[in-house]
Amino acid sequence: MSKILRINTKSKQFSFEIPAESLNGLGGRALTSKIILNEVPATCHPLGDANKLIFAPGLLSGTAAANSGRISVGSKSPLTGGIKESNAGGMVSQKLAKLGIKALILEDQPDDDNYSIIILKKESVEIVPANEYKGLGNKTMMTALLEKYGKKAGIACIGPAGEKRMTCASIQFADPKGRPGRAAGRGGLGAVMGSKKIKAIIVDDTGVDKMPLVDPEAFKKANKIWAKMITSHPVSGEGLPALGTAILVNVVNEVGGLPTKNFRSGRFDDVQEISGEKMVENIEKRGGAVREGCHPGCVIHCSQVYPDKDGNELTSGFEYETIWAFGAHCLIKDLDDIAVMDAMCDDFGVDTIDTGVAVGIAMEAGVIPWGDGKAAVELVKKIGTDDPMGRILGNGAAFTGQAFGVSRVPVVKRQALPAYDPRVVKGVGVTYATSTMGADHTAGYGVCQNILKVGGDIDGLMNKDNIEISKNLQIATAAIDSAGLCLFVAFPILDDENGLPVIVDLLNAQYGLSLTPDDVINLGVATLKDEYEFNRQAGFTKADDRLPEMFNEKVPPHNIAWDYSDEELQQAKPV
Amino acid sequence: MSKILRINTKSKQFSFEIPAESLNGLGGRALTSKIILNEVPATCHPLGDANKLIFAPGLLSGTAAANSGRISVGSKSPLTGGIKESNAGGMVSQKLAKLGIKALILEDQPDDDNYSIIILKKESVEIVPANEYKGLGNKTMMTALLEKYGKKAGIACIGPAGEKRMTCASIQFADPKGRPGRAAGRGGLGAVMGSKKIKAIIVDDTGVDKMPLVDPEAFKKANKIWAKMITSHPVSGEGLPALGTAILVNVVNEVGGLPTKNFRSGRFDDVQEISGEKMVENIEKRGGAVREGCHPGCVIHCSQVYPDKDGNELTSGFEYETIWAFGAHCLIKDLDDIAVMDAMCDDFGVDTIDTGVAVGIAMEAGVIPWGDGKAAVELVKKIGTDDPMGRILGNGAAFTGQAFGVSRVPVVKRQALPAYDPRVVKGVGVTYATSTMGADHTAGYGVCQNILKVGGDIDGLMNKDNIEISKNLQIATAAIDSAGLCLFVAFPILDDENGLPVIVDLLNAQYGLSLTPDDVINLGVATLKDEYEFNRQAGFTKADDRLPEMFNEKVPPHNIAWDYSDEELQQAKPV
Repeated sequence: MSKILRINTKSKQFSFEIPAESLNGLGGRALTSKIILNEVPATCHPLGDANKLIFAPGLLSGTAAANSGRISVGSKSPLTGGIKESNAGGMVSQKLAKLGIKALILEDQPDDDNYSIIILKKESVEIVPANEYKGLGNKTMMTALLEKYGKKAGIACIGPAGEKRMTCASIQFADPKGRPGRAAGRGGLGAVMGSKKIKAIIVDDTGVDKMPLVDPEAFKKANKIWAKMITSHPVSGEGLPALGTAILVNVVNEVGGLPTKNFRSGRFDDVQEISGEKMVENIEKRGGAVREGCHPGCVIHCSQVYPDKDGNELTSGFEYETIWAFGAHCLIKDLDDIAVMDAMCDDFGVDTIDTGVAVGIAMEAGVIPWGDGKAAVELVKKIGTDDPMGRILGNGAAFTGQAFGVSRVPVVKRQALPAYDPRVVKGVGVTYATSTMGADHTAGYGVCQNILKVGGDIDGLMNKDNIEISKNLQIATAAIDSAGLCLFVAFPILDDENGLPVIVDLLNAQYGLSLTPDDVINLGVATLKDEYEFNRQAGFTKADDRLPEMFNEKVPPHNIAWDYSDEELQQAKPV
Repeated sequence: MSKILRINTKSKQFSFEIPAESLNGLGGRALTSKIILNEVPATCHPLGDANKLIFAPGLLSGTAAANSGRISVGSKSPLTGGIKESNAGGMVSQKLAKLGIKALILEDQPDDDNYSIIILKKESVEIVPANEYKGLGNKTMMTALLEKYGKKAGIACIGPAGEKRMTCASIQFADPKGRPGRAAGRGGLGAVMGSKKIKAIIVDDTGVDKMPLVDPEAFKKANKIWAKMITSHPVSGEGLPALGTAILVNVVNEVGGLPTKNFRSGRFDDVQEISGEKMVENIEKRGGAVREGCHPGCVIHCSQVYPDKDGNELTSGFEYETIWAFGAHCLIKDLDDIAVMDAMCDDFGVDTIDTGVAVGIAMEAGVIPWGDGKAAVELVKKIGTDDPMGRILGNGAAFTGQAFGVSRVPVVKRQALPAYDPRVVKGVGVTYATSTMGADHTAGYGVCQNILKVGGDIDGLMNKDNIEISKNLQIATAAIDSAGLCLFVAFPILDDENGLPVIVDLLNAQYGLSLTPDDVINLGVATLKDEYEFNRQAGFTKADDRLPEMFNEKVPPHNIAWDYSDEELQQAKPV
């Protein structure tokens, strides 16, 4: 039976616990959120000793189930002040699960400035001094750690931004090739790790057995159907492997929902320069790679390696939202400049969305000119230094807005809006407004029905039905995040009535249960309820469930505004 | 009958209105808060076009009533996100009242970067271009304006911090001698004025009649008693005139409540170096001035002019809270360094409390060493420049804490705690936690009963009764702020049962009313209720009515912690 590993980062003591009965059947996000609700005082300072940082593999993580290797990281967010779950790929989730660790809970914090590394192996838990790594970027850090701890180690670590406890600091996870391109990016969880002076976590599953499966045959059978379902869907089977998530640049621009110049338009004149097609053209010309997976067992392969003009690896995991944030949002059209900033964000360890939006806010304030990619690169560079400008940007868009007295700041619960205009893609706009996480497209990806026409065809410009689709997606996403599944499995699930049942089959075969699809949905609902309750205790009200005033403006080309009332928005919350 | 003057800062149009019936009997804070509740959407961006900035003289302002010349400025606060009333001395309140202006409401905001000055005279309202003054500090600005508009003009203006829309920007009021020492300092109202591109407001009452009084004889008689009552109380009649508010340095240190090194102790070893006695010694040696009033009609005269070593005027209105913030809080013991920072804050236009606390947070983060006055001066200097470090500090303590990842930040509702340790002076601690304004000693000055033994003798170390005294003081203060009276009249009111009745006599004689003391108390309660309601709509809950975790530590010399439950604290709110 899997256990909870609890580590006190002050005393360096640890203990394994049999999970309380109330944690039965929980994994990933469902588990991190439950533990936070139970154990973290909602009004505590997110960077103080009362906050906790929790890593939990999903329910299916560690098995061979396709795309089940996502790790959930949870905490009280230094960015939003509410609960946070941010999930990522990499190697940690599967290895933690194989070590029989249902959740790793980091507690308390040292009084001094000494950093540690946590090393988890089959028979041991070590917390070793790590001051030699202080100040290192994630790239150098990961290389050094893989050198020392073996190429197959799973790594979660923080860069300078996490050490500086910036509220956009990420926790970066080494991908299967040891690169820092995968991140629990949103909400400043790297700052919480920094506050506990943990520079890295190494997870080594050498010598452990395969994950136990109660019914291996049934599992194998279900997984075959499952993998096939994912690879045969046009989005997860064709679009994403071919162009990565950057396929969306042209698609979203076409529907008029690509936020341009701080959400002043839904179309970007220079869109071709930053498109997925352009990205792949550059990659192929320069000898990079497409169709990489962020974790073993991925059958989608939406990741890639983007080289510079000389063919040297520049960045990996070059996502649509990143390209948008530094691109259309800032009017920057040089994809190489954007790639340089993406690489710096991964290396310093900051969220690319909030950082990119913050750079646009600095442009709004006149700090640098709109569209000046080189100047933007110089700004982002400061995040890795002690320059006060870096401190401003590394704390995100809301903070940068306050620093420069800008009132046109696209944030909800202080978290920056991602790459879909909420007025044009209202299904995701409703999610931005009402999610427990702040503005987060992954919390209920209404882009499916509004743009991709997956799971239905709901007009993103119209009010009708978008509340309902956001609500249902938020529930489904909470369940997917709890299973440890990649969000992109939502495409086949939404389009194939056998999608959810096959996940249920996998869970039942693994654990010897007899869950129904309703049980999985209920897990999503219960997780959201835990998160609402934590946020309520932290002081959130429906006044926080709204978009800023700037979205009352009509956005071209559709000339449509945001027009939900507070009361309508509350209906997107399943309580 | 007094009118409301409404100015649209975008169109530059203005109108005089007969006040709605619901505004009858309201002045000062009661009026600003009612207008904000009625007219400002609680969820708007404080620096956006939906926010309003309201100037309202108190009910007694403009008359000869002793100490009745305080001006209330109200808005949604860019610092706290809640309602804000900040009041100040200077010449504006009395002159506005004499011009028959019950409230001046500034609305909307320009799209461009052109500043204006508003000039109010007997027969005219002018809004004139003011770009020539852009970037000027308040000192130069006031000198220039008095030169141009006459020595007797009342002036409210903003410095560079207000133009930069920093959330600690103040609105500075010229004192009777044209100095910028008086401020509506707290909550960032200067940023709201900056967002509306109003650099200054000139109020010239040349040619207007005296304030009408329904019963001049009764008024004169009551005022004689009133003035005598103030001047014969030991605090307002002796202590404050002798040493200014800085008399408190030694007094509060003696009781162990002078927060030292970011609230780590209640006593400061070098207290003598920054005491009121030392201040007056320097002033007298160097040829400065004590016993000045902040507005005509003041009979207390707690203000002063503090010169540098060469006898040149350095700063004026050198208050206890300022000396504490830059002094004991930062371990700085050179009173001249503190005076230099006070002068810079007045000139740039930022709140001295939040700025001083922010400097201490920068010390906490290791940006400069504890106690280094010269380094602190250099930091504060940056607030007047475009340096990003200035942007950080000028946005206050909470912001500076976030910038540098510091979790030990003494703020409530993002506003910095002032100069009284809440664990030792619990009467004011309860006010910090529960006030509508964020941490604000002036919102319910429990120092009276806890330390000065005015209005009773309640132990500040014990829980008992401090909830009740804070509640009653918060009500009384709301009423005093609405009358336009200086807060220091609370001393005689609390100790003399005829205090409140004589204020009622003044109001009745002025307006021909037959108010009772209960009516005045009810005005205080109603004002607080309006403020709670606005804050509720803005998203505040009881999770916001609390002190940060750092106060769970025991503070020497009494080794006592903060120990109120959330439920107990709610009882300090009269609703």
